[in-house]
Amino acid sequence: MLTYSFENVKEPLYEYIYKCIKSDIIAGNLKAGEKLPSKRTFARNNGISTITIQNAYDQLMSEGYIFSLPKKGYYVANIDIMSKIPKEARIALDIQLPEEKISYDIDLSNNAINPDNFPFSIWAKLSRETISNRKKELMEASPTGGKFEVRAAIAEHLRSFRGMLVDPNQIVIGAGTEYLYGLLIQLLGKDKSYCIENPGYKKLVQIYKQYNVECKFSDMDDKGITVDGLCQSKAEVAHITPNHHFPTGITMPASRRYEVLAWANEKNNRYIIEDDYDSEFRYSGKPIPTLFSMDVCEKVIYMNTFSKSLTPTMRISYMVLPVHLANKFYAQLSFYSCTVSNFEQYTLAAFINKGYFEKHINRMRLYYTRQRRQLMETIIKSKLGKKCEVIENDSGLHFLIKLHTHLSDQEIANRLKKKGIQMKALSEYYLEPAKSKPHYFIINYSNIDVDKVAEACEAIDSVLNK
Amino acid sequence: MLTYSFENVKEPLYEYIYKCIKSDIIAGNLKAGEKLPSKRTFARNNGISTITIQNAYDQLMSEGYIFSLPKKGYYVANIDIMSKIPKEARIALDIQLPEEKISYDIDLSNNAINPDNFPFSIWAKLSRETISNRKKELMEASPTGGKFEVRAAIAEHLRSFRGMLVDPNQIVIGAGTEYLYGLLIQLLGKDKSYCIENPGYKKLVQIYKQYNVECKFSDMDDKGITVDGLCQSKAEVAHITPNHHFPTGITMPASRRYEVLAWANEKNNRYIIEDDYDSEFRYSGKPIPTLFSMDVCEKVIYMNTFSKSLTPTMRISYMVLPVHLANKFYAQLSFYSCTVSNFEQYTLAAFINKGYFEKHINRMRLYYTRQRRQLMETIIKSKLGKKCEVIENDSGLHFLIKLHTHLSDQEIANRLKKKGIQMKALSEYYLEPAKSKPHYFIINYSNIDVDKVAEACEAIDSVLNK
Repeated sequence: MLTYSFENVKEPLYEYIYKCIKSDIIAGNLKAGEKLPSKRTFARNNGISTITIQNAYDQLMSEGYIFSLPKKGYYVANIDIMSKIPKEARIALDIQLPEEKISYDIDLSNNAINPDNFPFSIWAKLSRETISNRKKELMEASPTGGKFEVRAAIAEHLRSFRGMLVDPNQIVIGAGTEYLYGLLIQLLGKDKSYCIENPGYKKLVQIYKQYNVECKFSDMDDKGITVDGLCQSKAEVAHITPNHHFPTGITMPASRRYEVLAWANEKNNRYIIEDDYDSEFRYSGKPIPTLFSMDVCEKVIYMNTFSKSLTPTMRISYMVLPVHLANKFYAQLSFYSCTVSNFEQYTLAAFINKGYFEKHINRMRLYYTRQRRQLMETIIKSKLGKKCEVIENDSGLHFLIKLHTHLSDQEIANRLKKKGIQMKALSEYYLEPAKSKPHYFIINYSNIDVDKVAEACEAIDSVLNK
Repeated sequence: MLTYSFENVKEPLYEYIYKCIKSDIIAGNLKAGEKLPSKRTFARNNGISTITIQNAYDQLMSEGYIFSLPKKGYYVANIDIMSKIPKEARIALDIQLPEEKISYDIDLSNNAINPDNFPFSIWAKLSRETISNRKKELMEASPTGGKFEVRAAIAEHLRSFRGMLVDPNQIVIGAGTEYLYGLLIQLLGKDKSYCIENPGYKKLVQIYKQYNVECKFSDMDDKGITVDGLCQSKAEVAHITPNHHFPTGITMPASRRYEVLAWANEKNNRYIIEDDYDSEFRYSGKPIPTLFSMDVCEKVIYMNTFSKSLTPTMRISYMVLPVHLANKFYAQLSFYSCTVSNFEQYTLAAFINKGYFEKHINRMRLYYTRQRRQLMETIIKSKLGKKCEVIENDSGLHFLIKLHTHLSDQEIANRLKKKGIQMKALSEYYLEPAKSKPHYFIINYSNIDVDKVAEACEAIDSVLNK
């Protein structure tokens, strides 16, 4: 119960009561959440009118010191938090962060971009020019699919690098392929079931699961995903990497491509998502036309990213929609804001339009060819060379080796881990472990120190000998 | 039927057949998709061995001119698309783009940022420094929630501007609030139903619909959303703008805040999403503590964006999760990549840490105060002043006027449209039109030419007189 002395009060009574309660709240004598006496009780106990108490409470309410709950009464508020905040504060709550990635001495699974290879100075120059010259456009909202300028630049790039003829308005850019998968699920419908390759990119399973859509697997043979597998999955949308399968590196030949297209054409609601994630890096032979180009029935959605060709840390990917899906996209999803910053859209457009992207890809292709060759040679010449087979494929930023061993993949990975080396087994990428082929390992070479590879080979060799 | 002359053939027969068919395909005599004769038929009709035909077909297959379908036979392929691509090509398909926004002479609904107000030169400088000094970090993948540096900068900003004490790891940044809403739906669960304010931000309805989650409305009174409305909606998550309601501008007083928090505490599965989209721009009075700060039961998710305080075209927003939700986020959703580019994350971190953000906000607050006052004065002094009431609220980048008229809102908007003026009615923001209050209109002043306002007032006045 609040007890205040009412002797010698010179100011109006309500103001006196207001001040008393206020200073008790500030001093912490009245704690946040504490119930105040009802006006009636307070008034009766002190021999004052309820109107006086009402006035005091009203003033306290308007200043936020107390609040009322209907039919319950008045409570001390907790809104003087501002004054309690220390000048400098960083709290560290007990939040369980995801496990930090272990840092290995040699990481054969690292697929980051080597900072030495990113065209920083050109990017800086183009950013500066964009900020100087495009102030107005930088402040104007981007359409959902992206600014026309960057989409036109991408269309032109697809024409010259991929032989694809597309209208810029078929292109939708977004902050990463993961984001675009989400858009696609909304576009194609959540009632559809999706089929991915086995082995394949496990993140897709997680993403489809998050959207509550069915995600099936289909087995592969040496030509890629099989139509039998697709049919057995009963899925409607095939999400595949025909140009360079991840992680096996298989390129789907023309005959299989036509079979898969034929599969899509059998039913109205079937589609193919063609993920062309690293097609810029093909080292020999003719580039293989995309499924998108071969398709005449608007069944293929083409996806690509600047993650491999520039850096994954910029978050710019795009998809090319067949015309009827582009129209559906504009009709249903154009209320969304584009997720890529205008600043990077215009800088990227300039990077492509001024020829820097082409030069960069050519330079990187040369660099990766050299890395790849050196790596393969080092492996073959090492003692390990006699205990493994290097599985070449002419594309991408990784290849496989098959170890001649009876050890399990897990055992090999664990033993290497103890030596500070990370190497991932193909079997880790199987979505149904029972079907996995053992003894294949993946060698990523986008960010590897070639000098350390001999050391890695020795370590792998010694692990196999144990 | 293919008929070729086999007289005077000097090269191996299979090669001859291969060349004949190839040139027919290139010349277009054999069209894509056309079926070739079976090896047996072809051989018998020409008196050649099937092996010869087999060899010719194999060569054509390996070069991609034909393909085979199992049990069906050989078909002419369509993969010489590459050679048909013109040197310069931009196709323009008949894609139905969403309606272009009409450009008005005076647009009182424009909420873009005036390019004169964006700190371009500082941003350019910080971008350049980021690119020069942070090469390594720029190439290293960002955690899902964002780089620690930018989250720590935001935490410090929240402390000094909003009196909020948060751990940087409670903060999740993303490419726009729309993207974060999607993440939140995944985090809180799609089985939950969401309740938004009526009137309110219609885009929310579209987003919730896309995710197939229930979206209800709750009426408001002059203190904001009502607990009765929340209860009637039977929703579990209240998505509200208590600090400056969009579009009415109402600020929820402390008493209502406690009621809403009490509502959330009544059941385990209830949450509040507190969207604090323009809280940086409060022109008088104490800033009001956020629901997040008042909440002691981990019921409030705080959201904010740099759209109003910097520019919506950069696409950086963030949410602050209560600890148990942060843990759930890391456990379930940390497989996602962050959707904001490293380049902009580090630039923004520097912008905040070096004090530029605080200066920018202070400058903009002054600018908007002036804009607001000038606008209100112009309206009050004009002939229109006698036919309307200006509804002040001390915050944000818009206010309301109430027109004394019998015309419908639609009629007024249409008449203004004819004069090249856009002004949006509050009634457009009602989610149940039957409940809408007529005659209230919204005046946005973040990007308005104050000199044109007198003209606009005259036009509105003449429209009312008609």
